[in-house]
Amino acid sequence: MSEKKVAIVGAGLVGSLLAIYFSKRSYQVSVFERRGDMRAVGYEGGRSINLALSNRGIRALKEVGLAEEIKSIAIPMHGRVMHDRESKLTYQPYGKEGEFINSVSRSALNVVLMNKAEGLGSQFYFDRRITHVDLVKTTLEVGSQSSVDSRQLTTEKKQFDLIIGADGAFSAVRGALMFTDRFDYSQDYTDHGYKELHIPPGAAGSFKLEKNALHIWPRESFMMIALPNPDGSFTCTLFFPFSGTPSFEQLKTDAEVSMFFENTFPDAVELMPALLEDYNSNPTSSLVTIKCYPWVRNKTLLIGDAAHALVPFYGQGMNAGFEDCRILNEMLDKHNDDWLTVLPLFEQTRKKDADAIAQLALDNFIEMRDLVADADFLLRKKIEARLHQLYPTQWIPLYSMVTFHDEMPYSMAYETGQKQKKIMDEVMKIQGIEKNWESLNFEEITKKLK
Amino acid sequence: MSEKKVAIVGAGLVGSLLAIYFSKRSYQVSVFERRGDMRAVGYEGGRSINLALSNRGIRALKEVGLAEEIKSIAIPMHGRVMHDRESKLTYQPYGKEGEFINSVSRSALNVVLMNKAEGLGSQFYFDRRITHVDLVKTTLEVGSQSSVDSRQLTTEKKQFDLIIGADGAFSAVRGALMFTDRFDYSQDYTDHGYKELHIPPGAAGSFKLEKNALHIWPRESFMMIALPNPDGSFTCTLFFPFSGTPSFEQLKTDAEVSMFFENTFPDAVELMPALLEDYNSNPTSSLVTIKCYPWVRNKTLLIGDAAHALVPFYGQGMNAGFEDCRILNEMLDKHNDDWLTVLPLFEQTRKKDADAIAQLALDNFIEMRDLVADADFLLRKKIEARLHQLYPTQWIPLYSMVTFHDEMPYSMAYETGQKQKKIMDEVMKIQGIEKNWESLNFEEITKKLK
Repeated sequence: MSEKKVAIVGAGLVGSLLAIYFSKRSYQVSVFERRGDMRAVGYEGGRSINLALSNRGIRALKEVGLAEEIKSIAIPMHGRVMHDRESKLTYQPYGKEGEFINSVSRSALNVVLMNKAEGLGSQFYFDRRITHVDLVKTTLEVGSQSSVDSRQLTTEKKQFDLIIGADGAFSAVRGALMFTDRFDYSQDYTDHGYKELHIPPGAAGSFKLEKNALHIWPRESFMMIALPNPDGSFTCTLFFPFSGTPSFEQLKTDAEVSMFFENTFPDAVELMPALLEDYNSNPTSSLVTIKCYPWVRNKTLLIGDAAHALVPFYGQGMNAGFEDCRILNEMLDKHNDDWLTVLPLFEQTRKKDADAIAQLALDNFIEMRDLVADADFLLRKKIEARLHQLYPTQWIPLYSMVTFHDEMPYSMAYETGQKQKKIMDEVMKIQGIEKNWESLNFEEITKKLK
Repeated sequence: MSEKKVAIVGAGLVGSLLAIYFSKRSYQVSVFERRGDMRAVGYEGGRSINLALSNRGIRALKEVGLAEEIKSIAIPMHGRVMHDRESKLTYQPYGKEGEFINSVSRSALNVVLMNKAEGLGSQFYFDRRITHVDLVKTTLEVGSQSSVDSRQLTTEKKQFDLIIGADGAFSAVRGALMFTDRFDYSQDYTDHGYKELHIPPGAAGSFKLEKNALHIWPRESFMMIALPNPDGSFTCTLFFPFSGTPSFEQLKTDAEVSMFFENTFPDAVELMPALLEDYNSNPTSSLVTIKCYPWVRNKTLLIGDAAHALVPFYGQGMNAGFEDCRILNEMLDKHNDDWLTVLPLFEQTRKKDADAIAQLALDNFIEMRDLVADADFLLRKKIEARLHQLYPTQWIPLYSMVTFHDEMPYSMAYETGQKQKKIMDEVMKIQGIEKNWESLNFEEITKKLK
């Protein structure tokens, strides 16, 4: 096997998983991380606390032998529980019996991945800032703060056979590609920001809401969601406009915040004793979609959020990044580690899938904050579930293609979803559909997909 | 009047014009330019040699009292001359009698503007690199190279009441805005690059092609154009795919270049004695559309290409930048130099116009390289010209709205153009239209615009 020297920039979820894959290929792997080692200094925050792990991500984790470790830190969520303004609950399963997504702690998962990578021989360097990337010579200039005077940065130039930028939405490696000619790039912020809030556990670590579900408080132009944590608590996230009515900008005083929450999320407020404290001390963060191309310059590659940052509304950011790693590894298998073949093949194959999931993630915000509270929409989902039940391989609902499949490219899921939407738009126009939907000609509907 | 201290970054066309406007408002104007003073060191190149100046740009130049100076360096172009592969020529006027665009030398125009600005008290600083912009304190850190050791940069921090980034598509000022939260940004390269070539003057400075026209060699997927220069020469620009068939990538040897030009532009080749030399020594440059928002952070504003870089196919990049300056100045008049009112008003008003002209410029490439060689398209233009003749204020062809109007916002021109296109699509479907077009009910067609 080769003795390729590979630098991975970023020891987050994607960088750490990639380090595992590469160590298994007997590469000499060095991982450079800007932050401290979260195993020693704790999780510094700045990113969401928990994430939805689904089949694409799980497939990669299984491949590297982490299926059991992950199961022990994941909480299955079998469906959505919608909370309306009158505290009435509606349940909608995500898929068929046995299909679920998983609430996992970002930091717990990251630690599992780092430990595994280190065990396989990856070298992790923390508190390292990338001060320069030479895309022609494939060198990194790596800066580390002096332990005596933190204002002093000592830099060192290191040569590699390959550099991977797995350093997230604000990638330093991508910064170097930005200065090359004909690099297409866009960063596009949503009008909504988000703020994390907290529902503490009940007595003896009990869950004060249904444990095995993702909770949504859909309010048309905005929403709050909650995901369960192993200690019985829930992490809530309010997705809310920065300005307008209502908005973060308008909630200025404690009284305004309290009144807004009591009127808008009455059943949640009861469970949030530290609401005002959390609201005031937690940051209001922004949400961005980042696209770029190419992902490769010579022997430097962008991967995960560094190549394609998504908004979180499909719960696919991490899953897409893990799938990147799995597909890259698969291509290396197939082409005997010939990077000159694999790098262009990877970006060409994967770019359209990254674009598709970016769009799906934006679209799903409307579904989550608005449509899930709509009777027509729930009926539509019910009809699609029946179609899927009757023709399991022919009609697969979009959510299932994205979330429960681990082979179908996102771009194909997107295109099929567009076709299904057109067909369902026609079905929903049928007179009296609310009452007669069970007597639809399901076979004929499925045939329309060709 | 105020004694506002304003920094303008960039002494290009837009920066220099803005310096004139601001000096006239009695501001203390400092202009920082990365390159040397082209009046002393000559024009360093890197941007196109000549440009099409039209009514929006002229209006601003007239306002600052430069109408006569500009006339003396401008060559009117009344229409397009299309050259086909058999060297057959077709002429298409741009507008009505007396409507024309102007070929002007970028550097000559820039010198006129800098001289005028200096005469009014603007201070120009050349060979100055902006090393840091503090958007909170409105300070610039300005670096100048040591005259003893060019590797040494001496930096100085300067405080202003206002900073204007007029530093073009790769704006350093915009670089500072990029690091602020919720800054939307995109850079999008075309698949075509460009290369400048040269047709020298004839005997005694005569013009070897029709002087008062813009020449186009439309070849469907690519094109060459030529604009006249005062010395009798023409500057040609080949807009050509980077890769594919045919493309820059494919023309590798002198023989390949020669054969391609002889087959593709036979009448031009005869006039280009130094074709191979020019082709090999001139760079192949890329074309980019840059969009961003906001344009303002505190008291720092982006303007011209720094805020909205366009592809050159509508000849509106400079004109749009000059219109930016004129409108900004008009708003300052109206609001008594109250920048806190004017800055947000300017970006809100002007963003949609910048987006519109960016799209029009992209669309016009297809018109220039392909449609102008099409009989249907020329008939369509003829019908539109007749509509305009009969109903001069109701039906104004898109090209005229963009090029010969100096008040209608680009966004309105764009929307009206979309409506007209739909109407004309219907008209062109009429059986036998090629023969019967003169007997159309022009009044009825015009009424469809409402």
